[in-house]
Amino acid sequence: MRSAHSSGPSAELRLMPIAFCGEIKPGDSLPDKLLGAMRQQDFALEPGDILVVKHKIVSKAERRLVDLATLKLSAFAKRWAKKYGVDAGVIELALRESRAVIRRKHGVLITETKHGFICANSGVDVSNLDGGGHALLLPADPDRSARKLHRELKQRTGLAIPVLITDSFGRPWREGLVDFCIGLAGMKALRDDRGRRDPHGYVLHASVEAIVDELACAAGLVCGKLNRAPACIVRGFHYQASRGSTRSLLRPAANDLFR
Amino acid sequence: MRSAHSSGPSAELRLMPIAFCGEIKPGDSLPDKLLGAMRQQDFALEPGDILVVKHKIVSKAERRLVDLATLKLSAFAKRWAKKYGVDAGVIELALRESRAVIRRKHGVLITETKHGFICANSGVDVSNLDGGGHALLLPADPDRSARKLHRELKQRTGLAIPVLITDSFGRPWREGLVDFCIGLAGMKALRDDRGRRDPHGYVLHASVEAIVDELACAAGLVCGKLNRAPACIVRGFHYQASRGSTRSLLRPAANDLFR
Repeated sequence: MRSAHSSGPSAELRLMPIAFCGEIKPGDSLPDKLLGAMRQQDFALEPGDILVVKHKIVSKAERRLVDLATLKLSAFAKRWAKKYGVDAGVIELALRESRAVIRRKHGVLITETKHGFICANSGVDVSNLDGGGHALLLPADPDRSARKLHRELKQRTGLAIPVLITDSFGRPWREGLVDFCIGLAGMKALRDDRGRRDPHGYVLHASVEAIVDELACAAGLVCGKLNRAPACIVRGFHYQASRGSTRSLLRPAANDLFR
Repeated sequence: MRSAHSSGPSAELRLMPIAFCGEIKPGDSLPDKLLGAMRQQDFALEPGDILVVKHKIVSKAERRLVDLATLKLSAFAKRWAKKYGVDAGVIELALRESRAVIRRKHGVLITETKHGFICANSGVDVSNLDGGGHALLLPADPDRSARKLHRELKQRTGLAIPVLITDSFGRPWREGLVDFCIGLAGMKALRDDRGRRDPHGYVLHASVEAIVDELACAAGLVCGKLNRAPACIVRGFHYQASRGSTRSLLRPAANDLFR
């Protein structure tokens, strides 16, 4: 197990994009595609590496595509879509994939997904798909998807590589999207430094760091929507090995000030 | 100018922590300290590098320290501190540094700072200071601090290195802190891909990416509170050169769903 608690200066960290030539198709084997792409780029997984994957290729491989033309639309979805000039099918799916609507205003629908993530339109996406006419849903259980990829990579390479699945979310108060971790296997989501001492001997109080969200953002810098790198390797980060789950990132509603 | 709009696969990105041996003291020259620390670690700035700096060393250099014993406390600060077992001086300063209180509940005070950032206790911090008894405020104008550092580094090195100043913020709905960009000079804060086409030819709609927040998070991975690296260099990221300001990251209240 690698330790998150090195107190000396950190070493250099590297982010290596994994570029794909072809597309991920429904039913494709992600480990095959990822390892193949790495071989083509002449690099291989090493012990200590972390794999970060955009959810789109996971969702596509898992056949989470919905033909918008086949959807039965609710009256609400039709009204909302008409009022704000958005796709009624996306709104319909956003509601179906949600367990609560957090806000609906200015044409923006903020929902809590069945997994507990709070984001626009339950993460339903139409932006990055061939042809169009289809929407892409988040994986049904992104932690499970991450565990599967983690397990399959271990079978093929012998290495227990932490796997993060990410999506771009908006934030309250702040313009611009950033990537969040929505599926996790193989490492702890949070680094809890409470009770530890900083270099001055001062005990750290409010220092729980959402490491996997920071890793998601870092990966977002090399996995742009405009290039063909839907995944990357993070090399040199000292993580805490663990089964891992994004559930520890979800703040219970009772402790939350914004819903 | 480097372009953010490479559509081919990205190249590798490197994050190199800048470890400090000594402490930053009020009145210190940050460019001297940073360039000195880099020399000691045997690396130098290169064209295209981005410098990310934790606000604490900027605030300390700018003498943004307040002796908590000298503060006149309001009745509210005293009541709040007593009720929740927090430092009344921090609450007092949090209110003084704010222009609005966004939420106060469960012992957490979420304010809008005079700069427009929404965070706990206006970013007032007591965690990382020698001795204790003092609080550290955010820089009075973090964009100006970033511009000053950008300018001074250019004078010393001849290189126009974008400078980001960061702080750790909590988020609604989500456990754990991540780093946000609170001061910026030398590059654009947002990457606006709206109207551009993805590899499938599909026009991207909601694709404004908060690049500098992703850079802040990436830097957060190598600039831990427990090590002596309060800054880092990001090498290999294709940014858009610009005067730069964090103001473009602030969502106007009228468009915001959560205040």
